[in-house]
Parts: sequence; C-alpha cells; structure tokens
Amino acid sequence: MRTSYHEELDSILDSLVHMAGLVEVAIRDASESLLSADLGLAESVISKDIELDRMHEEMEYKCLSLLALQAPVAGELRTIVSAIRVVFELARMGDLAAHVAKIARLRYPATAVPERFEAGFREMASIAIEIIDLARLSMAARDVKGAHRLAEIDSRMDELRREQFTLMLSEDSDISIEGAVDVALLGRYFERFADHAVAVGRRVIYIMTGQVPEGEDWPNA
Amino acid sequence: MRTSYHEELDSILDSLVHMAGLVEVAIRDASESLLSADLGLAESVISKDIELDRMHEEMEYKCLSLLALQAPVAGELRTIVSAIRVVFELARMGDLAAHVAKIARLRYPATAVPERFEAGFREMASIAIEIIDLARLSMAARDVKGAHRLAEIDSRMDELRREQFTLMLSEDSDISIEGAVDVALLGRYFERFADHAVAVGRRVIYIMTGQVPEGEDWPNA
Repeated sequence: MRTSYHEELDSILDSLVHMAGLVEVAIRDASESLLSADLGLAESVISKDIELDRMHEEMEYKCLSLLALQAPVAGELRTIVSAIRVVFELARMGDLAAHVAKIARLRYPATAVPERFEAGFREMASIAIEIIDLARLSMAARDVKGAHRLAEIDSRMDELRREQFTLMLSEDSDISIEGAVDVALLGRYFERFADHAVAVGRRVIYIMTGQVPEGEDWPNA
Repeated sequence: MRTSYHEELDSILDSLVHMAGLVEVAIRDASESLLSADLGLAESVISKDIELDRMHEEMEYKCLSLLALQAPVAGELRTIVSAIRVVFELARMGDLAAHVAKIARLRYPATAVPERFEAGFREMASIAIEIIDLARLSMAARDVKGAHRLAEIDSRMDELRREQFTLMLSEDSDISIEGAVDVALLGRYFERFADHAVAVGRRVIYIMTGQVPEGEDWPNA
C-alpha cells in the first residue's frame, strides 16, 4: 500500500513536469502564431488549451483523493498541497497562451503586433519560453537554485512591458487604437505568464525546503 | 484538543469572510478613486493591499499547519484545502483593486476613464461590488445557491467588456492612445476580479457538496 502511494506521488510530480512541457509548447506556438499571423497554429493552441484544463481538473481531483485517502504528513503533504497549486498555475499559463493565440486569430490575416513592437514581443516570447522551461527543469530536478532564478528572468519581462508603454505613448507614436489595445493586453498576458512561472518556482522551493519565499521578487505570492 | 481544532477551523472560515469584506472595500474605493480621480482614496487602496497580501501569507501558513498537525479527513480536509485556494483568490482580487487604483493615481489630476466609458465602468464597478458581496455572503452562510448565482453576475461583466471594445473601435471613436490602453487594462482588471469571485463560489460549493462544479460558466477552473 505504501509503495503504491509513493508511486502515485511520483506520478503526480511527473504529470506536473509533463504539463509544464505542454505549456511550453503552447506559449511557443502562440507566440509564433502571433508574430507570423499563422491562423492554423493559433487554432491549434486554442483547441489544445481544453486538454490542459482537463488535465487541471483531473490532477486536482487526484491530489484531493490522495489527501483524503492517505492523510499524508510533512514532506508528502507539502508536495500534494503544492501540486494542487502548481497545476492551477500551469493551467492559467495555458489560458494566457490561448489568449495570445486568440488575438492572433482575431487579427488574421493581418498581424496583431505593430511593426515597431515586433522586437519587444519577440523578446517577451523568448523570455516566456525560457521561464517555463526553467520552471519545468526545476520541478524535474527538484532544483531550488533554478527556481530562485525565475524571479530574475521575470524582472526582464516587467522591464520590456515598461518599454512598450513608453513606445506606445511617445510623441512620434503612430499606433492605432486597435494596435494599442492589442499591445496593452498582449503585454499583460506575457507579464502574467512569467508571474505564474515564478509562482511555480515558489512552490518548488516550498516542497524542497518547507519555507515559502517571500518579498517583492515573488509576485502572485 | 478536538475542540480547539474545530475552533481553528471556524476561525479560518471567519477570516475568509472578513478578508472578503476587505476586498469589497478595496474594489469599491478603487472604483470610486478611478471615477472621481480621488488621489487620496487611490493611495489608501494601494497601501491597504499590502495588508491583504500579509493576511494571505498568514492564512496560508495557518492552513498548512492545520493540515500537517491535524491530518483532517473528508469535509474538514475539503474545507482547509479550499480555504488555501479561496485566500489566494481573495488576495488576487485585492491586487486587481490595487491595479485599478494605480491607474487612477497615474492619471491624476485627470480621470483615467474617458467620458464615453464612464457609464460602463460605473456598471462594472457595481457588478464587482455585487459579486464580491455575494461571494462573501455565500461563504458566511455556506450557501450553495448564492455561489451558483455568481457565474450569472459574471456573464454581465463579460458583456460590458465586449461593449467597451466595440465602443473603442467604432468609427466615430475619439479615444486617445492613452485612453485606449487604460480602458483595455481596466476592463481586464474588472473582468478578472469577477472571475476570481466565481472561483471563490466554486470552492464554497466544493466545501458544501464535495463536488467541484465544471463547465464554461466556471472560469478560472
């Protein structure tokens, strides 16, 4: 009985790592669909998001059952309670990737991102991919050091967002109303995506150390 | 020992109801500061948000300790695990209220909301107040029926948001770039605020029935 319980615990952690991999694909494809106005890719991100939401429900149910049936303590309890939260964060990241794809779809065959904002969004996309990749690896390797680096990467995302606002509101800005709405929301989606990755890292640190890191570097605390 | 445990459980639920009351004040004041360009009120919402974040950390710690020390089962386990999630949702709602107040502060002494969008935001504000109030009452009375009505109220919020987009992008729109950015983000904050209230209701239903409601009416699932 104990063995199968530990197997279930391991399988939950494996599922989280797997789910993080799917989220990485989602934000990569969503970014690509956005930057190259690829309708098919946008549709695929949107339809795959349903699968992530289904995984969320399934995993949450699994964790709650494990809590109820096994009454775990200490490290195991921390792991299961944290898993419930991590799976929520990952599902939200999937939703945000789908939001990006929906804007790409809405503007097709045009590109939602105005030319002057392309480089910024390209960097945001690469940061989003980097941060979910690091969150996934931190989970897979139970690596606290990696999880701590997430907040660092996130701060570059925030900086890029500030640069976007400056560019939009600059005197020589020729952005349209539609463009401004898209840039404001897309920037928000990428920013929140990174925040959620930081929150995942926070839970990895909690699983490993029993301490929840605090302070301004830890958004979504 | 059991008595003090049940007292702790009750005190957690009481704290959630109390926290929901603070969130209601936050969104009411934030909306007022936004619509009447009241800098003092905006500052007060922003500084009180730190208190909500502190409560979040404290309550989460309390719930995790209770899980670890008492190894609760069935309804009690559901209550504590749900409390961890509710407190997170409430803290996020507080953050969103603070985001609204920050935009009010940023545009002071001007009003962030362009005149044509005032009525819409006034209705959004009143829906936000209504929805957190109903979420609070549902928690206080452990009322599943109230919790189910939250999704209904939320759908009106989504409708208002769609109306904002139509108005912004209409041909006779005279909105500035700054105004469009503000309206897009403010609309998003109010929309998310309502989503989180629905998620709170979802947890209330889970505590009372053991079933997590599913489907499209339940955003943030």
